[in-house]
Amino acid sequence: MTAFEAQDPDFERRVRESFARQRVMETMGATLLRVTPGEVEIALPFRAELTQQHGFLHAGVVTTIVDSACGYAALSLMPPGAGVLTIEFKLNLMAPAAGERMIARGRVTKPGRTINVCAGDVFAEQNGREKLVATMLATVMTIHNRPGVTD
Amino acid sequence: MTAFEAQDPDFERRVRESFARQRVMETMGATLLRVTPGEVEIALPFRAELTQQHGFLHAGVVTTIVDSACGYAALSLMPPGAGVLTIEFKLNLMAPAAGERMIARGRVTKPGRTINVCAGDVFAEQNGREKLVATMLATVMTIHNRPGVTD
Amino acid sequence: MTAFEAQDPDFERRVRESFARQRVMETMGATLLRVTPGEVEIALPFRAELTQQHGFLHAGVVTTIVDSACGYAALSLMPPGAGVLTIEFKLNLMAPAAGERMIARGRVTKPGRTINVCAGDVFAEQNGREKLVATMLATVMTIHNRPGVTD
Amino acid sequence: MTAFEAQDPDFERRVRESFARQRVMETMGATLLRVTPGEVEIALPFRAELTQQHGFLHAGVVTTIVDSACGYAALSLMPPGAGVLTIEFKLNLMAPAAGERMIARGRVTKPGRTINVCAGDVFAEQNGREKLVATMLATVMTIHNRPGVTD
Repeated sequence: MTAFEAQDPDFERRVRESFARQRVMETMGATLLRVTPGEVEIALPFRAELTQQHGFLHAGVVTTIVDSACGYAALSLMPPGAGVLTIEFKLNLMAPAAGERMIARGRVTKPGRTINVCAGDVFAEQNGREKLVATMLATVMTIHNRPGVTD
Repeated sequence: MTAFEAQDPDFERRVRESFARQRVMETMGATLLRVTPGEVEIALPFRAELTQQHGFLHAGVVTTIVDSACGYAALSLMPPGAGVLTIEFKLNLMAPAAGERMIARGRVTKPGRTINVCAGDVFAEQNGREKLVATMLATVMTIHNRPGVTD
Repeated sequence: MTAFEAQDPDFERRVRESFARQRVMETMGATLLRVTPGEVEIALPFRAELTQQHGFLHAGVVTTIVDSACGYAALSLMPPGAGVLTIEFKLNLMAPAAGERMIARGRVTKPGRTINVCAGDVFAEQNGREKLVATMLATVMTIHNRPGVTD
Repeated sequence: MTAFEAQDPDFERRVRESFARQRVMETMGATLLRVTPGEVEIALPFRAELTQQHGFLHAGVVTTIVDSACGYAALSLMPPGAGVLTIEFKLNLMAPAAGERMIARGRVTKPGRTINVCAGDVFAEQNGREKLVATMLATVMTIHNRPGVTD
């Protein structure tokens, strides 16, 4: 992995403030852990209220945290004033989302002026061990100069 | 579109009972509308508690309803005793998920003994009009004879 | 399906000239059939030189024609002077690519100033009947004012 | 990355023989480089006959080598007698496929009895340096006991 350099020295505060405006994160109980240039980590403790019919976290819930981890990884490398928008993603589900909590890690694999490619993984934590639950490949857009879409 | 025939005459009750076990649907406020062989419709009224930082429904929330619509479309064509599992999906986001409520429509495009391909769309309803918000292409697996994964 | 209107009255000639510059099409033996605003059709007769290990056309060959069908569907709606670039796509393979010839049909499902979403299908023709072989969901970018990327 | 162990001691010969039956590889001029348990590398020298309209290798050509690299990475971990089938993939294109030759590297990220998840990257080599051109996330199926689909 290449190490990236942030264009905005204030990138961490900016990511944390935008995350704090995502009301779905509070509703689900997700928190923002680590923010470094090009990488972001989000945690979600298991909650039965977010499950599908077999008792695992719903794929859409898993998507929620890993999409935000990818988007904020991209935002961490954007210039001041820009906004972040997910264009599309693909998610592969590899194991049931069961365990004490989920950790989503998003990272930029190819930053660009407009188009950023990001990869993300979700791990289930149980008894101090991590198991890979899902993996995402996402396309994230940098929005320049559009009022209402600034992060 | 080809019309499909259900292998299980009881397909509608089966889909509705499995949906009722998805606790995330109740948490989000989503309801199951229409269930026909190979097609399922789910509605989600807009709720500020489910938004991302710009005030639109989070992509993960949109994913939740359209993934279930696709998965249950596949289940509606499965033989009795089988279970449904999403292997992977891709979602393209085309417009902000804003409006009075979202309608997710999932349909099977290619059923199979093990692998089913499904397509889904999410529309935002506002003043009686619908606008396309997102589109999904998903791979859904039929699980035969696995205890605990019956739907 | 919504019918789209071309911004460039010369869209068909423009698509046909760009297609003629895709040397891989001549190498594979593919031809451009129909070009209408937002929809493009490409044909590829079966050739043993393009097969994978089981004797079917390779998934990458199938991708070649349906990616171009999607990209040119998007180009048919672009303003004069713009260029077309595929950002990403997902392809589901539903049946072996066997038969007399393949027909790829690409269509725009959501045009945009910069980001266009396209869907494509590939059918295998055999004895006058068509069978669905693969389906694509693609994100195609409109490139404005970039020398060397004009179509 | 976890190191995987092959179930079939003869995995390398098996992959090389199946690759040799992919006639499209010979047609394009691609060769199989490295085969290790869970990882496969394929090379393709640049050829003008395989280009799109801007003079770069067509996305479908890039797909051909990275899909095979992913599929054969999965095959290298399969038990004797099984066959390999790509169910679907997503490809992100990050830079023009230009340079002296392309190197596709596929690796298994999650092996399974039936469903394998693979990731692949394509690099363009120029003057001894590599540049990331594309990245794939693929779902590959292990086919057990199906005559005609043995690799």
